[in-house]
Amino acid sequence: MDNETRLRHWRERMEVPLFAASVVFLGCYAVRVLAVDLPQGWRDTFLALTYAMWALFVVDYAVRWRLSGAGTSYPRRHVLDAVMVALPLLRPLRIVRIYESVQRRHAEAKPRLALYARVIAYSGMSAVLLGFAGALTVYAEERGAPGATIKTFGDSVWWTCETLTTVGYGDVVPVTALGRTVAVVMMAGGLALLGAVTGSFSSWLIQTFTLEADKEPPGTPPEAS
Amino acid sequence: MDNETRLRHWRERMEVPLFAASVVFLGCYAVRVLAVDLPQGWRDTFLALTYAMWALFVVDYAVRWRLSGAGTSYPRRHVLDAVMVALPLLRPLRIVRIYESVQRRHAEAKPRLALYARVIAYSGMSAVLLGFAGALTVYAEERGAPGATIKTFGDSVWWTCETLTTVGYGDVVPVTALGRTVAVVMMAGGLALLGAVTGSFSSWLIQTFTLEADKEPPGTPPEAS
Amino acid sequence: MDNETRLRHWRERMEVPLFAASVVFLGCYAVRVLAVDLPQGWRDTFLALTYAMWALFVVDYAVRWRLSGAGTSYPRRHVLDAVMVALPLLRPLRIVRIYESVQRRHAEAKPRLALYARVIAYSGMSAVLLGFAGALTVYAEERGAPGATIKTFGDSVWWTCETLTTVGYGDVVPVTALGRTVAVVMMAGGLALLGAVTGSFSSWLIQTFTLEADKEPPGTPPEAS
Amino acid sequence: MDNETRLRHWRERMEVPLFAASVVFLGCYAVRVLAVDLPQGWRDTFLALTYAMWALFVVDYAVRWRLSGAGTSYPRRHVLDAVMVALPLLRPLRIVRIYESVQRRHAEAKPRLALYARVIAYSGMSAVLLGFAGALTVYAEERGAPGATIKTFGDSVWWTCETLTTVGYGDVVPVTALGRTVAVVMMAGGLALLGAVTGSFSSWLIQTFTLEADKEPPGTPPEAS
Repeated sequence: MDNETRLRHWRERMEVPLFAASVVFLGCYAVRVLAVDLPQGWRDTFLALTYAMWALFVVDYAVRWRLSGAGTSYPRRHVLDAVMVALPLLRPLRIVRIYESVQRRHAEAKPRLALYARVIAYSGMSAVLLGFAGALTVYAEERGAPGATIKTFGDSVWWTCETLTTVGYGDVVPVTALGRTVAVVMMAGGLALLGAVTGSFSSWLIQTFTLEADKEPPGTPPEAS
Repeated sequence: MDNETRLRHWRERMEVPLFAASVVFLGCYAVRVLAVDLPQGWRDTFLALTYAMWALFVVDYAVRWRLSGAGTSYPRRHVLDAVMVALPLLRPLRIVRIYESVQRRHAEAKPRLALYARVIAYSGMSAVLLGFAGALTVYAEERGAPGATIKTFGDSVWWTCETLTTVGYGDVVPVTALGRTVAVVMMAGGLALLGAVTGSFSSWLIQTFTLEADKEPPGTPPEAS
Repeated sequence: MDNETRLRHWRERMEVPLFAASVVFLGCYAVRVLAVDLPQGWRDTFLALTYAMWALFVVDYAVRWRLSGAGTSYPRRHVLDAVMVALPLLRPLRIVRIYESVQRRHAEAKPRLALYARVIAYSGMSAVLLGFAGALTVYAEERGAPGATIKTFGDSVWWTCETLTTVGYGDVVPVTALGRTVAVVMMAGGLALLGAVTGSFSSWLIQTFTLEADKEPPGTPPEAS
Repeated sequence: MDNETRLRHWRERMEVPLFAASVVFLGCYAVRVLAVDLPQGWRDTFLALTYAMWALFVVDYAVRWRLSGAGTSYPRRHVLDAVMVALPLLRPLRIVRIYESVQRRHAEAKPRLALYARVIAYSGMSAVLLGFAGALTVYAEERGAPGATIKTFGDSVWWTCETLTTVGYGDVVPVTALGRTVAVVMMAGGLALLGAVTGSFSSWLIQTFTLEADKEPPGTPPEAS
């Protein structure tokens, strides 16, 4: 069995376990940030679990690198994988991959969602996961900072929604350097989200228009249902 | 007469009465929020009317469920209907459906609006209705809250416009948990509105460009009239 | 000569004079708002000029109504014309019409701008005119209001740019009812502007992509010079 | 050798040196703004270098004007070139040109990026360069101003990210006239960036949809890895 087949097998076999591990990572991180009254023993357990998951991601990356046989050019050609190892909180975003795989397997049973509906579903899931991970990180950074306006997790979630939709009231804002760095990533996410929503809407409109030009009954806009 | 025909008849017959009921619901809610000096007797009347309309929506949902013969899978397959029962303030958004039906009936008399014009009309109506319901709810929540900046209904409407257009000055912002939850729904509405406006504009441009390429006189941009 | 021909002649002959009158109107309004130290005599002159221009718009509207022979249905079918009579500050937006006419006359001499370039030009001109008229009106309303943050015309222009681009810092915001009403119109303008920019960009991309698929050299993105 | 050939030769030969000069210009400006403790001798050296680069841009413009043989109509027909001479900080934006040229030369070796990927790459590079130049200029203006909220370069970078993504919290804002003027340019940049992101996303979606309609496997959305 050559390396390429081995790599494919590894990817397929690890897809679900890695996703489960990424959810466990996010869950443990959330517990450590939110449950401040937890006994020290539990806190240590969750910390150990977090690091164990991280170690798993590193091992998976190393195995892929090895099997690819790409040498030193691998990290440059798989930048996103390296980012995922460095920032495991973003890993659950891979849910889109899983969702796509599951949909493909059931393709015979029921027709797949239209492209625009899938993009809106992807954007929604990505926004929720990115927002949750971001709100946790910013809350963990900001709650003890002098002059902070984000004092509760509720504030942090509220700030996240403001940011992802690019509304930006500015009633609560991060003041620490790390909090602001996370915020910049979330603003970029907000832009991409806007792009996805407007792009898929535009695409859906053009598709509907083309059908209408062919004298078929027009679709109803999605929000009108 | 089988159940499917009965369901269709029910939907057709109830379309207009349900829309009227949803407008009455919104009106009674608005009166109760805005007319604080109303005698208690009148307040109770409006409250009873509100609950009566709500009961009507629940009955309509139950009848549809029964006639569909879908069993326990019905709520999962008609999520939007369930949302409409839980949040009747959003019901008037169905005006788009009514508008569409009316337009279809008069299709012979005059040509229908172009797709992009309809989408802009839908977006406008949806924004006004969503904004009005949201401004009422946020005002009702915020006016008595400690540290609130939204003190009059005018402030609430101003905040609504800031939010739906994603401008977000932040001079007046909700501070209560429920007010912020409503705000998040309105931010999502703002995103969808942006998507509708940019998407229909983009679609209109592509259509105009295609016509122009075929050597026909180009249309004038809508804002130029 | 029948009424329809007369109406067309009237429109053609009045196009440039009406545009000139709308610029004079905007200019006189600007002088009255910005030059507070002007002697009373001059102020009265500019005020008279403003009203004279307004009277001209009303006369033009009346002539068109008369010549159209449409009776009471005219205002309903020419809503935008009625808005222009009620809000003459928005009239210079018609520059797009003039520009379009001039371009069409010189169509033989040089090829017209591509559709996307024209839309960006329209959006730019509209944004500048809408912004200038809005900044003037808001400044006139806000400068004497208690608790106002817009104190100079510079503040007003700065606030206008924040609003039209939907950035909305909120460091300066209108506090009067009329100022906020104007602001809402400008937010809607900002949304339309966003739609125009993103829509034309999207359209330009699709056009470029189609050409590229036909193996022609791709265009360079507009911002790249 | 006629003038047109000479002009083309000049452009080709000067492309890389001018880009290098524009990077040196930006670098020297950055050092002068950020390294306030630099000995006076070094500061003077960097200032001289800055002016030398500027002189180079002016000479290049003059040579092009001369070789074009266009007379007084040249500046009007090459507005962007004139802007680049007046605001050399924006010059590194030409990196897109260089990038495009390099890509074209290697066209045989490897297939070019898809159109949407290139547009996102252009937008990203332009945003980073525009943001860096803007953050420097605003910081230089604001740090000494009375009542300024932008006090460190970190604040300025944070404010830049808020502005380019049109989030606009308003926790830090420019207060000087020049700072606000730069801010307006960056807001316009944010709008264009939004247009590029949403436009390319929309274009990518339509392309994917067309392929899918032809029964080919659909692409995965870019953010899904």
